[in-house]
Amino acid sequence: MRLTQQANYSVRILMYCAAKRDEFAKVSEIARVYDISEYHLFKILPILVSNGFIITHRGRNGGLQLAKEPKDITLGEIIRAAEENFYLADCFDEGSYDCPLLSMCDFNQALNDALEAFLAALDRYTLADLTQKEGDMRSLLHISENGKAGQTAVN
Amino acid sequence: MRLTQQANYSVRILMYCAAKRDEFAKVSEIARVYDISEYHLFKILPILVSNGFIITHRGRNGGLQLAKEPKDITLGEIIRAAEENFYLADCFDEGSYDCPLLSMCDFNQALNDALEAFLAALDRYTLADLTQKEGDMRSLLHISENGKAGQTAVN
Repeated sequence: MRLTQQANYSVRILMYCAAKRDEFAKVSEIARVYDISEYHLFKILPILVSNGFIITHRGRNGGLQLAKEPKDITLGEIIRAAEENFYLADCFDEGSYDCPLLSMCDFNQALNDALEAFLAALDRYTLADLTQKEGDMRSLLHISENGKAGQTAVN
Repeated sequence: MRLTQQANYSVRILMYCAAKRDEFAKVSEIARVYDISEYHLFKILPILVSNGFIITHRGRNGGLQLAKEPKDITLGEIIRAAEENFYLADCFDEGSYDCPLLSMCDFNQALNDALEAFLAALDRYTLADLTQKEGDMRSLLHISENGKAGQTAVN
């Protein structure tokens, strides 16, 4: 059982933006610090924009910025938006499956309950909780105290 | 986010055995009714045996039988035993990953909490709960009232 890379990186992109505070985050910085391709990031960004998590600013001095305070973004919201689907078993994917038990099986119901519990647990964490060790995080992400990406990240 | 087929079929094999009550379930019947290969089933059965869910009986009249009462097997136990791992994100897979945030990231902690909530919800269901609509289930699985597999299942 595993989240998609899209969901995983969505959280980490938003953590990076939170660590930058009011400075704009550059896609090139994020790609470098997490060692992923910019192409991959550009596929994920529309999800984060359309769900109201980030604002993009164009131009040479542009970049990404959180659209809300970190305390107002829950981890549950991010995962719900970024995970492609929550088809825990084949029988969640209606129409593409013909298990003989489909019409009466309570396994599906049990998995739905478990999924709700999973997401409810994530709703109890905000992006602010994930980035509270801010000094450590900024150092690990090579972000200086004024929000600028350091040498390791931009070169 | 999806369970492995191994976990999914483990539950369904055990549901079939529960529906057979005291009759032995044949691998050929289970393969036929769920439309999966016997090869696939034979890969899953050792997990169900070694975790104490089923007993296998050899010989022409042999087959599979639940090792415990359905009310004494929780869905959480089955999923814990049959799911290959619960590496919800790359960072769960220690040693194979070098996210710069690894040493202080609370995302990992949040996912662990969510996973515990997921499994706790599954612990509240037993195999007896999943098979309580027994009449319907036996009919859908082509098992007659005396536990014998019907024509559709064995031919």
